[in-house]
Amino acid sequence: MKILIAPDAFKESLEALEVCRAIQSGFEQVLPDADYTLLPMADGGEGTASILSYALGGRWKDVIVNDPLMRPITAKYLLLPDNTAVIEIAQACGLHLLMSEERHPLITSSYGVGELIADALGEGVKRIIIGLGGSATNDAGLGMLMALGMAFYDAKGQALAQGGSELAHLRRIDAVRLHPKVLDTVFEVACDVTNPLCGSSGASAVFGPQKGASPKQVALLDKAVSHFAAVCHQHGYQDYQNIAGAGAAGGLGFALMTFCSANLKSGFDTVAEAVSLDKHIAHADLVITGEGKLDAQSAMGKVAGGISQLAKAHGKPVIAICGSVDGLNPAQSAQFDVVMPSIQKLDTVDKVLKSGYENVETTAFNVAAAMRLGSNLYCKEWVCW
Amino acid sequence: MKILIAPDAFKESLEALEVCRAIQSGFEQVLPDADYTLLPMADGGEGTASILSYALGGRWKDVIVNDPLMRPITAKYLLLPDNTAVIEIAQACGLHLLMSEERHPLITSSYGVGELIADALGEGVKRIIIGLGGSATNDAGLGMLMALGMAFYDAKGQALAQGGSELAHLRRIDAVRLHPKVLDTVFEVACDVTNPLCGSSGASAVFGPQKGASPKQVALLDKAVSHFAAVCHQHGYQDYQNIAGAGAAGGLGFALMTFCSANLKSGFDTVAEAVSLDKHIAHADLVITGEGKLDAQSAMGKVAGGISQLAKAHGKPVIAICGSVDGLNPAQSAQFDVVMPSIQKLDTVDKVLKSGYENVETTAFNVAAAMRLGSNLYCKEWVCW
Repeated sequence: MKILIAPDAFKESLEALEVCRAIQSGFEQVLPDADYTLLPMADGGEGTASILSYALGGRWKDVIVNDPLMRPITAKYLLLPDNTAVIEIAQACGLHLLMSEERHPLITSSYGVGELIADALGEGVKRIIIGLGGSATNDAGLGMLMALGMAFYDAKGQALAQGGSELAHLRRIDAVRLHPKVLDTVFEVACDVTNPLCGSSGASAVFGPQKGASPKQVALLDKAVSHFAAVCHQHGYQDYQNIAGAGAAGGLGFALMTFCSANLKSGFDTVAEAVSLDKHIAHADLVITGEGKLDAQSAMGKVAGGISQLAKAHGKPVIAICGSVDGLNPAQSAQFDVVMPSIQKLDTVDKVLKSGYENVETTAFNVAAAMRLGSNLYCKEWVCW
Repeated sequence: MKILIAPDAFKESLEALEVCRAIQSGFEQVLPDADYTLLPMADGGEGTASILSYALGGRWKDVIVNDPLMRPITAKYLLLPDNTAVIEIAQACGLHLLMSEERHPLITSSYGVGELIADALGEGVKRIIIGLGGSATNDAGLGMLMALGMAFYDAKGQALAQGGSELAHLRRIDAVRLHPKVLDTVFEVACDVTNPLCGSSGASAVFGPQKGASPKQVALLDKAVSHFAAVCHQHGYQDYQNIAGAGAAGGLGFALMTFCSANLKSGFDTVAEAVSLDKHIAHADLVITGEGKLDAQSAMGKVAGGISQLAKAHGKPVIAICGSVDGLNPAQSAQFDVVMPSIQKLDTVDKVLKSGYENVETTAFNVAAAMRLGSNLYCKEWVCW
């Protein structure tokens, strides 16, 4: 029997690969001869590049780039064997790179993201997968585009400085020196945010405050990026400001669509496609997924929900082994043949998170044991399922 | 398929019958046509008579008896259809009948227990099942024996009063007026306590303090019951003081063995025999048990552990669906084909206890679903279990 094990990480408890191994270890005690494929998954957020590295190989490259405050840091990205680069923008412009008193979205820049992209283009890649998420910036990609060779001028012909507030002064865009390979390269952007660039549900209003913007600064930034979109349009670029995801990562979504012809997809879809999840599922007799917390609110967990849809499309049975399960409605439960939480006893959150591996292994063992029991009862012709 | 559902109660969460119904409800969603037998179980403690009433029918009888301080109360016992009475001694001499300032094991009496027994003998029963546990007394059955007609005198020929401390003055035992039916009646005593009557692990030392005895009173009581045992021996009675369980219920175990030829068995064995558990298991294709908390310390839970041993003896598969599962060793886990806790998510103890029914139902459903999945995979000849 071919068993595909494709869970998400259990946040704060287990990496996705550890979840795979715990499930395999439990199942193997019952089914030692099954053929197990471990395919740790991710939802496009932090750790996505590591997941792709595990599934597809490739090599990591360290690059010195500028952080959101234009200080040199070492950032890494992944070069896959098929001429694809995988870049997580948080490596270059993540909020985690700043101390809390350094959060200042008027001036923070996505410049380092452009440097990572430029380095990847220099490596000759044909495709770049970009994970948006965790950014400290609200510059609608101004810095990134500068690092890729574009120039931005104000009414006096002065080049703009870094930071979202500068966009308010933009008059002229010069794309002549845009890195020539940008237009020959496929940009796939993993993005689960559907916000537009501007307005009350735009980048500045929704994500500005957590990046350090006061209400006044939010208004200023929103006006600035709105002006940027208008100037782009004046320059003949297609208007992407209201497309879902334009407001992701402080407007990086907008810039990647407008200037790099990027294609935005959900994080799960991006990862699923990159690792050929569909083929793995088609090849399996049984699919086991998992999620740290499977609940109705998080749309069933991005990974477990996505896996179950694909498995059902292929007519394959799917089991979810989770950390906890909370309030699924009947339709959500019915997406899985079996849904099992793995908490063995009430304890502090900390202790439960720490016993993740054992709990998942034990639960997997018992699910497999129940399957064996079912088939044994069937063998004895006791059962009419 | 014949499925026997025989769980213990989940203390503070679900009655045993509710556990049965939750498990059946979950399984029926997968296996609507199976033949379910619900056999709620008990371990001989509180609620045992109710369990036997559910399994075997019979009628309850209310009797006015004396409580531990010789005040009239209404106590009930069960009359089974087969001429058996089921008496829980806590009905007549339970610690819950006293306010905490009334706890006084020097004077509290088991008299009411004797009255319940006498009433049952008057009903013509041939067998009495007695549940020990929860007593407020330390009188080694002095009160019970008086209520059954025996007389106890001091050196001056004065009849003793009630209470364990009186035993210190005992010189002569007169059994002439012992209820004539006592010796024709089978006494089966459910007892999970193995303490002897006297000494450092005896009734007074181990259970005296929780009944209100000070260290000085413990010493006094221990000396008194020891003297009682010596006088019994002098009168030609076989010496039971060091038999396991003699110290149960403040020495009621000793009195029942010495004067009623009682047979002490574990609570689980007593219940199992009364409900013909063995026959039910022999008749089933699958046995499902459960325990609120299944752990290594409590010897696997008295009910779940006992059920699994019987099921294994009959070669029947056994599933445990529990509240929580804590630290079973491999041999203990191996007693069950499947062991599943039912906690779905971390929450307060109170909320988890309150969601017991839903959690058990959900877990039962998913165990049954895993069994079905296993048999379906087997059908497709994918599996070599």
